[in-house]
Amino acid sequence: MTIKITGALKSTCTQRVVTVLHELGLEFELDQPTNFASLKSPEYLRDKHPFGRIPVLNEDGYQIFESRAIIRYLVSKQKSSLAPTDPQKLGILEQFLSIEYSYFNPPFSSLVDEKVFKPLFGRGDPDPVKVVELTKKADDVLDVYEKLLVGKDYLTGEYSIADIIHLPYLHYAIQVDYDLGDRPNVKRWWKNISEKPSWKKVITQG
Amino acid sequence: MTIKITGALKSTCTQRVVTVLHELGLEFELDQPTNFASLKSPEYLRDKHPFGRIPVLNEDGYQIFESRAIIRYLVSKQKSSLAPTDPQKLGILEQFLSIEYSYFNPPFSSLVDEKVFKPLFGRGDPDPVKVVELTKKADDVLDVYEKLLVGKDYLTGEYSIADIIHLPYLHYAIQVDYDLGDRPNVKRWWKNISEKPSWKKVITQG
Ligand SMILES: N[C@@H](CCC(=O)N[C@@H](CS)C(=O)NCC(=O)O)C(=O)O
Ligand SMILES: N[C@@H](CCC(=O)N[C@@H](CS)C(=O)NCC(=O)O)C(=O)O
Repeated sequence: MTIKITGALKSTCTQRVVTVLHELGLEFELDQPTNFASLKSPEYLRDKHPFGRIPVLNEDGYQIFESRAIIRYLVSKQKSSLAPTDPQKLGILEQFLSIEYSYFNPPFSSLVDEKVFKPLFGRGDPDPVKVVELTKKADDVLDVYEKLLVGKDYLTGEYSIADIIHLPYLHYAIQVDYDLGDRPNVKRWWKNISEKPSWKKVITQG
Repeated sequence: MTIKITGALKSTCTQRVVTVLHELGLEFELDQPTNFASLKSPEYLRDKHPFGRIPVLNEDGYQIFESRAIIRYLVSKQKSSLAPTDPQKLGILEQFLSIEYSYFNPPFSSLVDEKVFKPLFGRGDPDPVKVVELTKKADDVLDVYEKLLVGKDYLTGEYSIADIIHLPYLHYAIQVDYDLGDRPNVKRWWKNISEKPSWKKVITQG
């Protein structure tokens, strides 16, 4: 069984998948596209990802795209406790996965885009007004996380893919001086998840 | 076992959950908040949904929020084929769930907000420029769906929660004259999913 990932090590969606691959101890080949424009070629749209994105997984002909879907597939295949199957535990996991995509991801991905990817890809300098606005929105989300994390080491109580999917954007945000502030629960959680060997491997290789 | 849903029958996120409850043949009580402002009260934020939204499920003390999470919980509890558990099938299901939230939901929820909820909640008339822009974006998404649905009755091949989560916004959009256009696969799919008794029950009761 050969797992091939079409993705880029600096891309947040790929990092999420690679962290899970490391957690599961799975070997994989990484196929890095030459540039983002190539993701919009007719061949790529037809054969890889109809919306022109990364990452894509191919395992001996079985192919899926979307980072969160790839993670679910891998974890389920390995019967890993990173995604529990008991219905009540699954419900809690799904709640936190949806919290990430619904409330955390919008401000954090926009903030990181503004401060990291916009200058990196030559789309101009960060807009200071937008940065202030997005930082405020990100702060509001973490205020809620501070409550959700009371007395807990991980979002669902146990280490899971719900924690892992937060790593890339929070990491980039902190790298460009986003401050976790006076939030002891968020800080404990961040330490717990960012010091795992799987994530350390992603950022040292990336 | 008593299932209580805090939600509103006109709300898309509640409709999604209620459709699944009907599919599974589960009885439930609906607790309709008096207005959206009440979702931001300190009590509601503390006891129900920390981001101030509907729907919320409570089943004999077990409580979760987020429509997609509630659906996953219910389907998993009932061991329903609406969400397969075989890893490869699960991967495909998750791919389509992520497609819905990543690409379909943004233009369709914004279009429906502009044309339906903005006037309904007294936030002003629809902005015609925005409507044109959003319709174009929605069309682009359905162009991809037309390809994803070649030779298929349902997104994953079999009827699943990935189909169900599309119902509310597509229904509202069509009600305000959004045109599925010259897309026979999308039209076949829409007919297949919108004529199910579960969905008919939601729109006639709502
Ligand atoms: N919902 C998708 C998002 C994929 C996505 O937007 N990937 C980015 C990299 S993190 C990308 O391909 N960007 C290139 C582009 O948008 O042209 C997922 O989670 O996989
Ligand atoms: N991601 C959430 C979204 C919940 C949501 O935004 N619900 C809307 C109704 S469809 C709501 O509560 N709106 C009230 C508000 O935002 O104040 C879910 O799927 O449950």
